[in-house]
Amino acid sequence: MTEILRGKPVAEELKENIKKRVEALKEKDKTPKLAVLRVGANPNDLSYEKGILKNCANLGIETVVVEKDEDIDTDGLMAAMQELNDDASVHGILMFRPLPKHIDEKQLQEAIAPEKDVDCMHPYNLAKVFASDASGMEPATPRSAMEILKHYAIPLKGKRVVIINRSMVLGRPLAMMMLSEHASPMICHSKTENLPELTRAADVVVLAAGRAKSFGAEYFNENSVIIDVGVSMADDGKIAGDADYDNLAETVKAITPVPGGVGSMTTTLLLNQVVKACEKTA
Amino acid sequence: MTEILRGKPVAEELKENIKKRVEALKEKDKTPKLAVLRVGANPNDLSYEKGILKNCANLGIETVVVEKDEDIDTDGLMAAMQELNDDASVHGILMFRPLPKHIDEKQLQEAIAPEKDVDCMHPYNLAKVFASDASGMEPATPRSAMEILKHYAIPLKGKRVVIINRSMVLGRPLAMMMLSEHASPMICHSKTENLPELTRAADVVVLAAGRAKSFGAEYFNENSVIIDVGVSMADDGKIAGDADYDNLAETVKAITPVPGGVGSMTTTLLLNQVVKACEKTA
Repeated sequence: MTEILRGKPVAEELKENIKKRVEALKEKDKTPKLAVLRVGANPNDLSYEKGILKNCANLGIETVVVEKDEDIDTDGLMAAMQELNDDASVHGILMFRPLPKHIDEKQLQEAIAPEKDVDCMHPYNLAKVFASDASGMEPATPRSAMEILKHYAIPLKGKRVVIINRSMVLGRPLAMMMLSEHASPMICHSKTENLPELTRAADVVVLAAGRAKSFGAEYFNENSVIIDVGVSMADDGKIAGDADYDNLAETVKAITPVPGGVGSMTTTLLLNQVVKACEKTA
Repeated sequence: MTEILRGKPVAEELKENIKKRVEALKEKDKTPKLAVLRVGANPNDLSYEKGILKNCANLGIETVVVEKDEDIDTDGLMAAMQELNDDASVHGILMFRPLPKHIDEKQLQEAIAPEKDVDCMHPYNLAKVFASDASGMEPATPRSAMEILKHYAIPLKGKRVVIINRSMVLGRPLAMMMLSEHASPMICHSKTENLPELTRAADVVVLAAGRAKSFGAEYFNENSVIIDVGVSMADDGKIAGDADYDNLAETVKAITPVPGGVGSMTTTLLLNQVVKACEKTA
């Protein structure tokens, strides 16, 4: 019988923990505050932002949204970032990416105060993630995957983990987090040969290719643990993960659903970093 | 018949290239200069330094050695670093590590001018390596391994690479360099289960466990390409790699010798970075 690794109970547990820590901070006259820095107003950003603001309100975290016109230049956005860096009431800054092409995103990444960089884009935080040093800020999605594995007590020490994604926001940082737990991570991608052979031999497979329902039974066995980070629109118009979920349930050991798996936790992990940032100033 | 992947012809080729570039720089009145910053004078450091200075002399690279007493404190060493950062005639700085325990090494790592950081210890350079962005400075040992693979035309695209080392100076950066070549790297270590099964299934195996002659035939097959980065003293008092070399020759596809393999190239790769740093100022 396949175990369904739902994100909700993990997120709920973390939310309770966050609420207590926010209360403790408020007793010391500190209120965690997240600043969202956004250029333009595309519907995806607005929808993501709405979820964040709602979650912040529920957890007692203050928010401020700084919206800039799409024709702002690099210097203008750098000035907005500097203002948030200098604002002692702001503990975390989330700048929506990608930025319009005429803006030098790299300058912004290096300009954010590392201690407020809750989305982990500053080189200082990336270098720490690379070294499996958890003292800095971490990207929320790979940490969500790690929290789910921890919550459901999936063994990692000594185990093989195949990660199908090599991005800076998921595959690479996740591999480094896996090393902290003494797993052996392999980073795969579209050019990897004989992928089904590799995934079948793995203890944990992390899917994040972004191809709806494209990983079927030939990629797994009855001992596979699948962490599905894919989120795309399937042919039926519904949101689906990379795993061919309906045809896999009952054939693998454990799997995260989409929606309701890793994606349902990332905002909570992001807000956890805001509270951590505030705690460090207390 | 096993192909022996010697480092010497690869290093010689690179040295010829470096010499030409140094000449071109000198025509522009630029001479690449490496500063060695050393605390104390332990014999290993001195021996390594001697090799570097000799290679620099052969290649037309100037050198300066800054030796500090072992009782120098963090502030004192930071001041020495700042002086080298500010010295426009110095293009590369190599600080020998590890430092004495009373010195805050992290402060030094963050203090070095990233553009002079030929040993890749500054977070800015580490973050670039993490992203497979070759525009910064890179650690010499993993790049040596990559140069050998390139020279001997070992295919990497789509291939499986098992790396037995998870350090910041070898295993992690090498995995990121492998991703640039579209290989699928797996990082293994002392806690990895069933390691021989993993190495046997790999196309390329990078050994860097530091255990002399401990990887024998059970770890490989006739298609294995072995890059041996191990350097330790074997029972017979001689320098040996991690591979049980004498018993492997004729059973694998290709192998780097120790000595004479990866280790024979690292100094050249380091000096290549000094010249690159100088070229960027020209």
